[in-house]
Amino acid sequence: MITKAEIQLVRSLADKRNRDREGLFVAEGEKLISEIRSSSLRIRRIYATDGLFSGPEVTIVSGKELERLTQLKTANNSLAVVEIPHHKLEIEALKGQLVLALDEVQNPGNLGTIIRLADWFGIRHILCSHTSADCFNPKVVQATMGAILRVRVHYTDLEKSLSEARNAGIPIYGTFLEGENLYQTALTESGIILMGNEGRGVSPACAATVSRKLYIPPYPADRPSSESLNVAMATGIVCAEFRRRS
Amino acid sequence: MITKAEIQLVRSLADKRNRDREGLFVAEGEKLISEIRSSSLRIRRIYATDGLFSGPEVTIVSGKELERLTQLKTANNSLAVVEIPHHKLEIEALKGQLVLALDEVQNPGNLGTIIRLADWFGIRHILCSHTSADCFNPKVVQATMGAILRVRVHYTDLEKSLSEARNAGIPIYGTFLEGENLYQTALTESGIILMGNEGRGVSPACAATVSRKLYIPPYPADRPSSESLNVAMATGIVCAEFRRRS
Repeated sequence: MITKAEIQLVRSLADKRNRDREGLFVAEGEKLISEIRSSSLRIRRIYATDGLFSGPEVTIVSGKELERLTQLKTANNSLAVVEIPHHKLEIEALKGQLVLALDEVQNPGNLGTIIRLADWFGIRHILCSHTSADCFNPKVVQATMGAILRVRVHYTDLEKSLSEARNAGIPIYGTFLEGENLYQTALTESGIILMGNEGRGVSPACAATVSRKLYIPPYPADRPSSESLNVAMATGIVCAEFRRRS
Repeated sequence: MITKAEIQLVRSLADKRNRDREGLFVAEGEKLISEIRSSSLRIRRIYATDGLFSGPEVTIVSGKELERLTQLKTANNSLAVVEIPHHKLEIEALKGQLVLALDEVQNPGNLGTIIRLADWFGIRHILCSHTSADCFNPKVVQATMGAILRVRVHYTDLEKSLSEARNAGIPIYGTFLEGENLYQTALTESGIILMGNEGRGVSPACAATVSRKLYIPPYPADRPSSESLNVAMATGIVCAEFRRRS
């Protein structure tokens, strides 16, 4: 049995301001919740149909009650309220690692896909401008398929963090229409890969910190390309190439 | 001014059965409709706000009327009803080309992303099983960003077409968990790249036609990977590698 106040709290977490104020986010589905349980994240409460989970933090609910809580189109058999983890960003600690930086990636589906592929390619940190989509948006959480538990997403003054990284000797790569052919460019094993907004690309302030501009060639490479690749797709192709070479 | 019958027709085209019966699909937005106009596709009618398009097939409508027609969350300034093109699939004609085959890719967003990246990588033909998402689904049409005009999507008995291709000497590649490392495998410049369903992967019947099984290595390559890449992402990474080598 759930109270009106509980329903109100869970539903309020669809909104970023409420997530920030409460320090909580929502995750749905048995697989994801099981993964969270065996991670370092702290679960405040699990609402689940009978027989799925047990423990003092579990409230058994009906499918109908879950429908009132869900932030998805179709309710799952379980929903958890989880504390938002806080990680301190230390630029020095990024040295020797491959890291992603996102300058205003706004579509939650794209952010979720990028977190998932970062996990696949062993990338542990993503820096995001404050104007990027929120990684605890329910759509992002579900799209990451659990990768959100292994990849740390840091919201930061991106221009400042990139400048600091560059001063610390970390190479910064970015994709630009005027960049060099990705496959004909020397790449270091570690560094920051900067990707930009879906429509406008990388902002001039962040672009100024880039040490090497890259370009994913279309096929044939000399074809005039009026079109572009989706930002998540471009991120995946660039990450695959960095990892292929290392 | 639009009639009730017109509104009914346009709205009915959200449904595949109606698109098939009428031989029509819907495309929205000035950029996409302009591209369709300069393509070989035939436009039955354009509904647009004043000042965007002119010609005998254009009906000037209000923003409010467009809201009644749209299949998107937010109505655009224009909507076109377009005749579905019919292309004959000839396996022999695929020789010497890089081609994609999709075995039950069901998510319209994934299909749209795949059509868009096929266009980027100069892939002109996609074979789809009849159980795949429909490429004239409004979500797919919008996600392809015009690529649907350049890439031909053929719905076919996929197992039969793949067998025929294999008998014609066309190599068939597919991604499988037990495949060879993509980056350590000899690839031909042309051939068919087969990708499978979001949850179940490639069906056994289609898998039996594959001449070379590939695997996109995670990083580090020997890491046990409980997770997987999204099918559109995997398609993009494999296509990029084929094109990098040719």
